[in-house]
Amino acid sequence: MNFASDNVVGASAPILEAIVRHNAGALPAYGADPLTLGLTPRFREVFEHGDLAVFPVATGTASNALALAAMVPPFGLCLCHEEAHVMEDECGAPEFYTHGAKLQGLPGTGSKIDPAALAAWLAALPRHVKQMPPRALSLSQLTESGQAYGLDEIARLSDIAHRHGLSVHMDGARFANAVAALGCSPAEMTWKAGVDILSFGASKNGALAAEVILVFRADLAETLEYRRKRAGHLLSKGRFLAAQLDAYLAGDHWLANARHANRMAARLAEGLGALPGVRLAWPVGGNEVFPILPAALDRALRQGGALYYDWTSRSLPPGEAVAEGEALVRLITAFSTGADEVDAFLDLARQASRRAAA
Amino acid sequence: MNFASDNVVGASAPILEAIVRHNAGALPAYGADPLTLGLTPRFREVFEHGDLAVFPVATGTASNALALAAMVPPFGLCLCHEEAHVMEDECGAPEFYTHGAKLQGLPGTGSKIDPAALAAWLAALPRHVKQMPPRALSLSQLTESGQAYGLDEIARLSDIAHRHGLSVHMDGARFANAVAALGCSPAEMTWKAGVDILSFGASKNGALAAEVILVFRADLAETLEYRRKRAGHLLSKGRFLAAQLDAYLAGDHWLANARHANRMAARLAEGLGALPGVRLAWPVGGNEVFPILPAALDRALRQGGALYYDWTSRSLPPGEAVAEGEALVRLITAFSTGADEVDAFLDLARQASRRAAA
Amino acid sequence: MNFASDNVVGASAPILEAIVRHNAGALPAYGADPLTLGLTPRFREVFEHGDLAVFPVATGTASNALALAAMVPPFGLCLCHEEAHVMEDECGAPEFYTHGAKLQGLPGTGSKIDPAALAAWLAALPRHVKQMPPRALSLSQLTESGQAYGLDEIARLSDIAHRHGLSVHMDGARFANAVAALGCSPAEMTWKAGVDILSFGASKNGALAAEVILVFRADLAETLEYRRKRAGHLLSKGRFLAAQLDAYLAGDHWLANARHANRMAARLAEGLGALPGVRLAWPVGGNEVFPILPAALDRALRQGGALYYDWTSRSLPPGEAVAEGEALVRLITAFSTGADEVDAFLDLARQASRRAAA
Amino acid sequence: MNFASDNVVGASAPILEAIVRHNAGALPAYGADPLTLGLTPRFREVFEHGDLAVFPVATGTASNALALAAMVPPFGLCLCHEEAHVMEDECGAPEFYTHGAKLQGLPGTGSKIDPAALAAWLAALPRHVKQMPPRALSLSQLTESGQAYGLDEIARLSDIAHRHGLSVHMDGARFANAVAALGCSPAEMTWKAGVDILSFGASKNGALAAEVILVFRADLAETLEYRRKRAGHLLSKGRFLAAQLDAYLAGDHWLANARHANRMAARLAEGLGALPGVRLAWPVGGNEVFPILPAALDRALRQGGALYYDWTSRSLPPGEAVAEGEALVRLITAFSTGADEVDAFLDLARQASRRAAA
Repeated sequence: MNFASDNVVGASAPILEAIVRHNAGALPAYGADPLTLGLTPRFREVFEHGDLAVFPVATGTASNALALAAMVPPFGLCLCHEEAHVMEDECGAPEFYTHGAKLQGLPGTGSKIDPAALAAWLAALPRHVKQMPPRALSLSQLTESGQAYGLDEIARLSDIAHRHGLSVHMDGARFANAVAALGCSPAEMTWKAGVDILSFGASKNGALAAEVILVFRADLAETLEYRRKRAGHLLSKGRFLAAQLDAYLAGDHWLANARHANRMAARLAEGLGALPGVRLAWPVGGNEVFPILPAALDRALRQGGALYYDWTSRSLPPGEAVAEGEALVRLITAFSTGADEVDAFLDLARQASRRAAA
Repeated sequence: MNFASDNVVGASAPILEAIVRHNAGALPAYGADPLTLGLTPRFREVFEHGDLAVFPVATGTASNALALAAMVPPFGLCLCHEEAHVMEDECGAPEFYTHGAKLQGLPGTGSKIDPAALAAWLAALPRHVKQMPPRALSLSQLTESGQAYGLDEIARLSDIAHRHGLSVHMDGARFANAVAALGCSPAEMTWKAGVDILSFGASKNGALAAEVILVFRADLAETLEYRRKRAGHLLSKGRFLAAQLDAYLAGDHWLANARHANRMAARLAEGLGALPGVRLAWPVGGNEVFPILPAALDRALRQGGALYYDWTSRSLPPGEAVAEGEALVRLITAFSTGADEVDAFLDLARQASRRAAA
Repeated sequence: MNFASDNVVGASAPILEAIVRHNAGALPAYGADPLTLGLTPRFREVFEHGDLAVFPVATGTASNALALAAMVPPFGLCLCHEEAHVMEDECGAPEFYTHGAKLQGLPGTGSKIDPAALAAWLAALPRHVKQMPPRALSLSQLTESGQAYGLDEIARLSDIAHRHGLSVHMDGARFANAVAALGCSPAEMTWKAGVDILSFGASKNGALAAEVILVFRADLAETLEYRRKRAGHLLSKGRFLAAQLDAYLAGDHWLANARHANRMAARLAEGLGALPGVRLAWPVGGNEVFPILPAALDRALRQGGALYYDWTSRSLPPGEAVAEGEALVRLITAFSTGADEVDAFLDLARQASRRAAA
Repeated sequence: MNFASDNVVGASAPILEAIVRHNAGALPAYGADPLTLGLTPRFREVFEHGDLAVFPVATGTASNALALAAMVPPFGLCLCHEEAHVMEDECGAPEFYTHGAKLQGLPGTGSKIDPAALAAWLAALPRHVKQMPPRALSLSQLTESGQAYGLDEIARLSDIAHRHGLSVHMDGARFANAVAALGCSPAEMTWKAGVDILSFGASKNGALAAEVILVFRADLAETLEYRRKRAGHLLSKGRFLAAQLDAYLAGDHWLANARHANRMAARLAEGLGALPGVRLAWPVGGNEVFPILPAALDRALRQGGALYYDWTSRSLPPGEAVAEGEALVRLITAFSTGADEVDAFLDLARQASRRAAA
């Protein structure tokens, strides 16, 4: 019963098999192998974009930070939600990769940037050399509160950004879960809605260590080859990343994984929501559930062996609050989460709930 | 017959099996898993050093650049051989990771830094704020010409460096081959000879994508945790690196791999050396062979399907030269190179040689 | 009637004379001249500190950013007030000089960091490699709201900072005005209260272009010689900076200038405070006055030729607000502000006030 | 008799007077004053270039490093002569300002880059992501050996650079001396010969602390406003730089100063050349003289109070060498060097020479 994150498990079976299958034989190093070269047409097809540039890397932090470095000069600002992973959880990777650019947090419910707040912030910006100029907007899909931006929201935010000369980045660590949740196409969620670069995640959805930077605008791709190499993110045995990503896309494995994880999250949410004294802080937008639990239930679950993070100090919808004697927690499901694992957790919760009522 | 490099093949069987074996189950992310935590005592034992700090990463470029960043401030110099990989082949990774430090190339035969040249360079250095101060010395073991520094050479260079306040880094992309060649212990080749940080390579010697930064001085380890994270080199599924490295050390697999590769290089060198018109530019110091071939032989080998790099424009021993109608080439053997592969190559060479003589 | 800032005027007469006086003759370049060398004992005497290291530069931005770079590694945080000049008005100079460190704004009334907020923020900080570690605290003296931290407040903040391993920086762009206002010694306001580096301002208080970084801790001074040179802030004709600073200290010229500016601010505040409908947002803490004016008065003053900045969107004391039909403005006096200039401004204000009442 | 450098003296009389004259009165800060704004049309006229962008700064190091940062991305190379000031004497300022770009030294007699060497170097460059791509060429005019590139040499080098996608920078610390020596127009020596950015020096030729970055290509000017501010090189009291530069251009004061310094160098060279055992290592190309002196003469001059730098370890023309018992020295004349000072030096030299012969 480990719901701590979707990166606590290993690779999915097809991806692990691909790593093993492509291990044999001699191949050109540093991404010149056919498997790596074949990723570009594959991603172009999936994203319906003939000029897409494709840069595999091993970690999400590298994927995000390299993408931002391609967009934001050292003296520029990158706007993001004030709870964004790039701002809070990467030990300053964007600052390192951009050589000293600055992240500017913006508010918004559900960890989504509020378009009105974005427009107002940009309108109020002093036009003076003292002020670092904004050059990019970064959206997290899913957000830190597990919500998916709707296509119209992405389009509206991108439009505001573009009108002010900003490029648009999407941190898609859980992109697959968002696509599965919205039932749209990858193209619709990205370049058709104005996204210029997508950090396309795979490690949280079945890969062992694989992410891809997908660049929809040729002018933004120019520097990435060099930036990736010099950051030590061009693997010599490129087959390792390519095998994972090839298997990830094959037969829509990525979407199947995400749909499963989302179903498990829905099952968790449904079960928890039926318990007395439990309510969901946020609707389920993908594979994350944010219940507010009675403290006794929280304790009982943890004593029963369930693993997950406390989220009590994080943001909530307007009007909502975690009361004394309650805990806000975050539960994440993965491609590998079994229905039996969810049900065991729910059984544990129901028993604890009943004991408390007795 | 691919002798282009030792990174053109996949992982060795035990390492691949370890990746598969450790794939199952939920484990803490970001290096807090038991497998990763267990690497520290393992390496401490292998290196006979009780305070060794251990930082696994996925690439050699990251390993080298992070090590140098721990040693050299943004305004400092790192001395290295003028042909060193860190200077010539990493697209400025050291400059990126150190935030603008500078690599200063020094001369020396066999791509080894000449201790006298090091001492002279340091003695002649202007003491003025216009001059970036030297803060580290980086040694490549094996060197770019496939040579191994002797233990006394390492000690002498380290001693000069330390007396001038420089830390000593060893780029050990082929450290295993050097240890196998010299028959010394890992400790003797590193901290006992004055090395402060070792970039311990595994990817070129059987791993899929795994390297380790080994820090022998506690004061140099302090910043690496943060620097690695912010560079995106802390993998979320740390088991991937740990499984490889665990298997790499197990039963001295790493040394067995290196000894095999070295034997294959010796076999290649012996066979080639016996051919008319062929001579070795450098003695075999590990798993690399640098023959000077008649151009016709070079052509015949390539037409026969052999893959390797031309090295004609590189440095040579004093008095040696590549004549008109000759080519200097580099042949690298790996853990996976078969004796049959070597023999097939030598057969091809003998036939071509005989044809040319006819 | 230019109250826009204290940097809109040139140099004071003694400083200009010193520049002229020291122009003749040949002197060693790059700070090796006797005048520059003499600054160190002069500042050591003024600050009663035998080990003080002294680094003159031409601008306050350079002075602040270099000081922070000496304290904060590229992966570190610098805590400051959320309205601090280093955070808002230097186009990311600290981020540039520190190579990507991050400024973290903290709240507090009067643009002073609240010690309780500092302690709470540090206590709540996650201990995880995802989190950039705080390494410095930067205090602005005077603050952005013209307030002076009391000696006990500095000591309390420094103490909290030091207990958490942070160094303490003071942005003393208006240090002289603060010393003059509090009537304490320079030593009391700095190292005796726990300040480790002071950016000692002169340009806003009579110099043409001169600031000094004063380092009270030897370990923090080591890198500054190199950092300053490589930033292009070591002037070849060092006499230019030295002449200004020598004259600035001579006969307590710096304190006389600051006392005069403070008196003019008090005169302004007193006159404005007596007008109907005018109130001061903040008490006068040095040479800045922040009145809330009826909009009609604001218009009349500007039409009458007075120059100053609108400050309406800035922070206010709890409970205070700028009403519809009012404007918060900032008036700054300088060493050169004449009593007649203040009185002319007040006359203009009184007339406008009377007209409005009529 | 101080011939150590042209920055050992203060400002010329007209420039000092301008500083004093423009000291009075209140003016907008940060370069918004009329004097600073007026520099743009002034420089456009002098350089016959309608789109010239003008960025005054206080030091040559800042001027060079900012110019290179506008041209070279963090992963790029800047080619320059292997003895260039930007490479050898600025403590890594270009590396700092470019965020880790690399300077690549090229050979050439007289510290001039040899066009054939440049073409060959570019032609031999590996096209691989391991290789940092060259993005700029920096020429020093005068060179480190006091030579002036001819207009055709500049054009030829620029042409090679542009054909390979490199921008062209000119380090014009002694640009005035070069213009005076060649008798060409400023436009001819710069944009008409292919120069994209000029670091136009004034501090060595009569200013106290003033340099200007002149950008001939609009696309290269875009980032400099921000880069300069964030480097702390936008002075608050902009009048200080503007007054100097205004006076520097007025009535061709800059050319008059340079012509005088050049004449004094010629006088020195002529006098020294007539002495037995003395020869010039390089022809006089501006205001620098490089005689090879008998060691006894060198000693006598220094004992007689003459100040200058030993240059013995520096490069020489092919076939030339400093023999045992000789010294190569560098003598620099300035706008302020008096004919009497030169003659006193020559008298001293003649007496010492005669004594040695006796």
